[in-house]
Amino acid sequence: MTVTLPSLPEILPSYVNGAWWTPQNPSKVTEVTDANTGERLTGVSTDGLDTAAAIEHARTVGQKALGELTIHERALKLKELALYLNSRIQELYDVSFATGATQRDHAFDVDGGIGTLFTFSGKGRRELPNSNVITDGPVEPLSRDGSFIGEHIYQRIPGVAVQINAFNFPVWGMLEKFAPSFVAGVPTVVKPATPTGYVTQKCVELMLESGVLPEGSLQLISGSARDLLDHLDYRDHVSFTGSAATAQTLRKHPNVQEGGVRFTAETDSLNAAILGPDADPESPEFEAFVKVVFQEMTVKAGQKCTAIRRVIVPQDRVDAVVEALSARLGKVVLGDPRVEGTTMGALASKEQQGEVRGAVQRLVDAGGQVRLGGPDASTGDADAESGAFFAPTVLSFDDARTPEVHAVEAFGPVTSVVGYTDVEDAVALAALGSGSLVATVATNDGETARAFAAGIGAHHGRVHFLNRQTAKTTTGHGAPVPVLVHGGPGRAGGGEELGGVRAVKHYMQRTAIQGSPDILTAVTGVWHQGAAAQTVTREDVDAGKAKHPFYKSLEELRIGDQFASGLRTVTLQDITDFAEETGDKFYAHTDEEAAMANPFFPRRVAHGYLLVSWAAGLFVAPDPGPVLANYGLESLRFVTPVTYDDSIRVTLTAKKITPRVTDEYGEVAWDCRLHNQNDELVAQYDVLTLVAKTWPMAPSETSQG
Amino acid sequence: MTVTLPSLPEILPSYVNGAWWTPQNPSKVTEVTDANTGERLTGVSTDGLDTAAAIEHARTVGQKALGELTIHERALKLKELALYLNSRIQELYDVSFATGATQRDHAFDVDGGIGTLFTFSGKGRRELPNSNVITDGPVEPLSRDGSFIGEHIYQRIPGVAVQINAFNFPVWGMLEKFAPSFVAGVPTVVKPATPTGYVTQKCVELMLESGVLPEGSLQLISGSARDLLDHLDYRDHVSFTGSAATAQTLRKHPNVQEGGVRFTAETDSLNAAILGPDADPESPEFEAFVKVVFQEMTVKAGQKCTAIRRVIVPQDRVDAVVEALSARLGKVVLGDPRVEGTTMGALASKEQQGEVRGAVQRLVDAGGQVRLGGPDASTGDADAESGAFFAPTVLSFDDARTPEVHAVEAFGPVTSVVGYTDVEDAVALAALGSGSLVATVATNDGETARAFAAGIGAHHGRVHFLNRQTAKTTTGHGAPVPVLVHGGPGRAGGGEELGGVRAVKHYMQRTAIQGSPDILTAVTGVWHQGAAAQTVTREDVDAGKAKHPFYKSLEELRIGDQFASGLRTVTLQDITDFAEETGDKFYAHTDEEAAMANPFFPRRVAHGYLLVSWAAGLFVAPDPGPVLANYGLESLRFVTPVTYDDSIRVTLTAKKITPRVTDEYGEVAWDCRLHNQNDELVAQYDVLTLVAKTWPMAPSETSQG
Repeated sequence: MTVTLPSLPEILPSYVNGAWWTPQNPSKVTEVTDANTGERLTGVSTDGLDTAAAIEHARTVGQKALGELTIHERALKLKELALYLNSRIQELYDVSFATGATQRDHAFDVDGGIGTLFTFSGKGRRELPNSNVITDGPVEPLSRDGSFIGEHIYQRIPGVAVQINAFNFPVWGMLEKFAPSFVAGVPTVVKPATPTGYVTQKCVELMLESGVLPEGSLQLISGSARDLLDHLDYRDHVSFTGSAATAQTLRKHPNVQEGGVRFTAETDSLNAAILGPDADPESPEFEAFVKVVFQEMTVKAGQKCTAIRRVIVPQDRVDAVVEALSARLGKVVLGDPRVEGTTMGALASKEQQGEVRGAVQRLVDAGGQVRLGGPDASTGDADAESGAFFAPTVLSFDDARTPEVHAVEAFGPVTSVVGYTDVEDAVALAALGSGSLVATVATNDGETARAFAAGIGAHHGRVHFLNRQTAKTTTGHGAPVPVLVHGGPGRAGGGEELGGVRAVKHYMQRTAIQGSPDILTAVTGVWHQGAAAQTVTREDVDAGKAKHPFYKSLEELRIGDQFASGLRTVTLQDITDFAEETGDKFYAHTDEEAAMANPFFPRRVAHGYLLVSWAAGLFVAPDPGPVLANYGLESLRFVTPVTYDDSIRVTLTAKKITPRVTDEYGEVAWDCRLHNQNDELVAQYDVLTLVAKTWPMAPSETSQG
Repeated sequence: MTVTLPSLPEILPSYVNGAWWTPQNPSKVTEVTDANTGERLTGVSTDGLDTAAAIEHARTVGQKALGELTIHERALKLKELALYLNSRIQELYDVSFATGATQRDHAFDVDGGIGTLFTFSGKGRRELPNSNVITDGPVEPLSRDGSFIGEHIYQRIPGVAVQINAFNFPVWGMLEKFAPSFVAGVPTVVKPATPTGYVTQKCVELMLESGVLPEGSLQLISGSARDLLDHLDYRDHVSFTGSAATAQTLRKHPNVQEGGVRFTAETDSLNAAILGPDADPESPEFEAFVKVVFQEMTVKAGQKCTAIRRVIVPQDRVDAVVEALSARLGKVVLGDPRVEGTTMGALASKEQQGEVRGAVQRLVDAGGQVRLGGPDASTGDADAESGAFFAPTVLSFDDARTPEVHAVEAFGPVTSVVGYTDVEDAVALAALGSGSLVATVATNDGETARAFAAGIGAHHGRVHFLNRQTAKTTTGHGAPVPVLVHGGPGRAGGGEELGGVRAVKHYMQRTAIQGSPDILTAVTGVWHQGAAAQTVTREDVDAGKAKHPFYKSLEELRIGDQFASGLRTVTLQDITDFAEETGDKFYAHTDEEAAMANPFFPRRVAHGYLLVSWAAGLFVAPDPGPVLANYGLESLRFVTPVTYDDSIRVTLTAKKITPRVTDEYGEVAWDCRLHNQNDELVAQYDVLTLVAKTWPMAPSETSQG
């Protein structure tokens, strides 16, 4: 059966300094072959590439172009980019088969990569401000009188985000790093791994063709880039994915050691799957467990940094697991993914095939019993001479503490099964991996789950609990999800990627800011208590002397716009009526003696809900206007009880304004404070509203959000 | 005039493996001298010290003892420790004079250190849960049906926190790292700098005498510990403070490079103070600026990693700044701090004196004009031969871009003054420091502050804005405050310390947890939507068949205890009445036509405040009981509008229980959800209450909190 190889140029181009670049008469070219057939696809060379210029292009042109957009504007571009890539997704599939990936594998690499763009587009707009300064944590008072305060902000780093990626996920591996750095506003230089870099190149080509990307925001180096780190300094960020050995080499670079380059690594680890003591062979957890191990061995032919290398099961269930797993693996059809019926493709290259064979041999030499497959097992109809095929292999070890089980990684469809005696033993075995990306624990028992989380949690970046409730809905052991962190301590590299907006902050510097409320307001764009405010009163409004801030659209409204009400007295009758109408007859509102016995109340007090309801009555602007709705409250605290005959007044200040990039309105958070007749703080909270950008509001378009 | 030197042992002891240890017949002893007089004080040696055993002691005994306490229990111990140290503070002062520190300097080192314990004690109990699992960020839905969800948790690292400290803050330098690691539950091994390690040793002695510390939670190595890193791995955390050169040496250790030791460095940097363009010599900002520079030059004789090495001022104000600064510095009285009238003591050692002299000479050779002091300037009555005295020195440079200005650090009372042309130029000059701990910007103009924050923020760990409002209340340029992060990018080491509870998390591993709501509830101790609940209804309660959860004290109450109300119908009259009584006559509640024109409402709707008020009426348990007060709400969101003739019901579930360690009650957060008659979610929020530990409540003691 013949297959069609992708048509690629003689030399794969790089994209640097705003243009595609191919070396002229390169002295050295690295050949790139089809993983399934061994035929030449293309070559790569960086002979004569000016890396320093590319870095400078990113730092100048790229930083400038990205800095002209806000976080929300950049996030929206990610969505446009994702939609464009989806429209041309077949082209990415077509070229990806040559890496040994099946259509199922494409779902992880190609669809997974595009999905990550969508996620960061949505999270960036929902969870981050529409500006370029992110505040972090509460305002910290630093002086008694409130004149000196502190706060933390995040701003983008002033350099470049360099990606040095692994061969196994040529699309996802780029996009999962590109998405957060782009939202942060930091330009990217991608250096993919040579064996599958042509898929990355195709994806970059499409991204550029989309017309969505600002100039200088994305560059690609096809081929080796040994001098890349020579041009970086403390302004820059390098995220490496690949082997621990390469991570160490990079980490030793003087610019990392002494120059302060921000360096993060995600390296392969000996990830474990643990079958809980409660999961007997008849349990739904047992079946789900075997299925997860099977998936991790066969998706991408086991070439995932998160794949399960160690299967840790109760001593008496080793054989049952091996048998169930082998039965599933026996049905795998190895072959060229472009041929119908193939369920698992080749490894990414002949080199990888050799690496995996060598690693399996080391495991066998260390005492591993081959229960399925093996270093030289048949690959059926798939030609393991020309293509990089490798048979699914299951090993078991009588001694669960065999060092090789916990240290030798066969980066293919290979796993080792060992037995444990009790939970403590299983925890100790998992820790022998010296830090991993992820572990699966199959248990339906909460206490067992708690014990495992406490025991293995700090050795892992992610722990995936599997039980009958999640067997069908789990996203799987191996798949990093964009909303959760990916990375792990120790052997896993010590880094963190993804994790929603956490990842955006990886490309930013956190800075503590100290100063007066006015200065912090100016720096953050968020109004701070104590800063200057433009106050209007009910009298001003009623007399037509001032406009209520609720009647200002986002065009007019400014942070610091403030409304101050007059006092309203709470009578005992008000409290009694409110109790009657709402049904809230809690004794503190209805029983004088009981209220006085309570440690916090002087006598009967007004309901907290009465106070916030009245506050709304005191600050409201009743007529139709740009404030469209109150969609919530944040951080409401009742500070001083209000008893009958006390009075309250409210001060409402525009605190934070977040115009939406896709709607004709935006969010406005109002600082709301209630005081009593003695100017004591009674309650404080943020009132969350939706406010029109203009008034009357522009006709609504089809939402792009 | 004679002074009394502290009485110290011949060899300073270490504290390891639960006992004080002094070497027997050491082959090599490093001598430690009084900084002011040059006389021998003591010696240090680690000949024969079993470092590996100390690390193992921490990992086993220390981890176990600390793990038996919760975060709040450990935080409370910090307060007890701080109170004890305060009771013996004079002993710390007495020994500290020998380092060259004045009584004013003690306020930063000794009082500052103890203050940090108080801060972490308070923050740990106010901002962290009373358990050993900290959740991080929102729950992330990972399946459509809610059966598979994700979340992040922090748990302590399973190793040891090793401190390698600088000589300038022997007490604060230890306590600012000890406080967060102790709250996290991670045992500490302290390795102070030799010249002032006797002060640290005294402090450790007092801490042990307090009886507050669990066994194995604190160990001290007096003297060199070259093999320390040989015994560490990915479970452990090293925080280094000191020179960039030593940081590099440590960072190159194989256990850091390859073994995954968590390594963080805080190194000296060329911190800048920038006088804003608006701050003319007559302005309050000018005076405050000069005062801050003066303070940074003289406190600890300028031996602070945060001290101002570069004074960047408008070109036309260089001379005015030099003159004003020199005038203040001219009044400094150098001498032994134990002698009355002394305002600045010696540097920490003769070696430091030589280092500073050499650095000043390099600056002079690079073109620096000596405006005050200088490498060989007179130190007045202070004997710079026997004592390590150095005269305050001000240099100015015609060329603001002289490389040495931005790279050569004279770690003493020395600063360089350069001129800038405009804000852009000042930003560029500040960045020449290649990453700093802190910068001061003196400006009273918001837009200038914003421009500087945007320009220099990402090059700094902290930016201190100074103006007329903060001149009197600022905590100063150089003083790290425990609630704000301390550290900076690039030359500053790239690390972060302090920052309130952020620092506690530095000693913890963040792990993503995936699973069913029941499993995440078990792992975190926090109830998750979708997890099992023990539901009681109003009928059950009224019929005496079940106890309302509000009638359960913390002894009885469990997460998942749930109350479910029946439906209550909202009539148009209810809405109208509520509008009338509260005054909230917003058109969406009162004007049918206008409400229908609003994009979010079908017709007139109930006030959100009506809904939460009614919800309280629906879930309340009116009689006196363990629920003492509702002190607030969190994260209230109105999801579906409720119009007249709709009905609502409420479900309230005990979500998070935080018993206080110092009171007879604790906080309980209740998950509160309102649904309508069609089971659509109407609103959700957390209700925050105070609940008694027992009922009737135990008699209140004097609060220790």
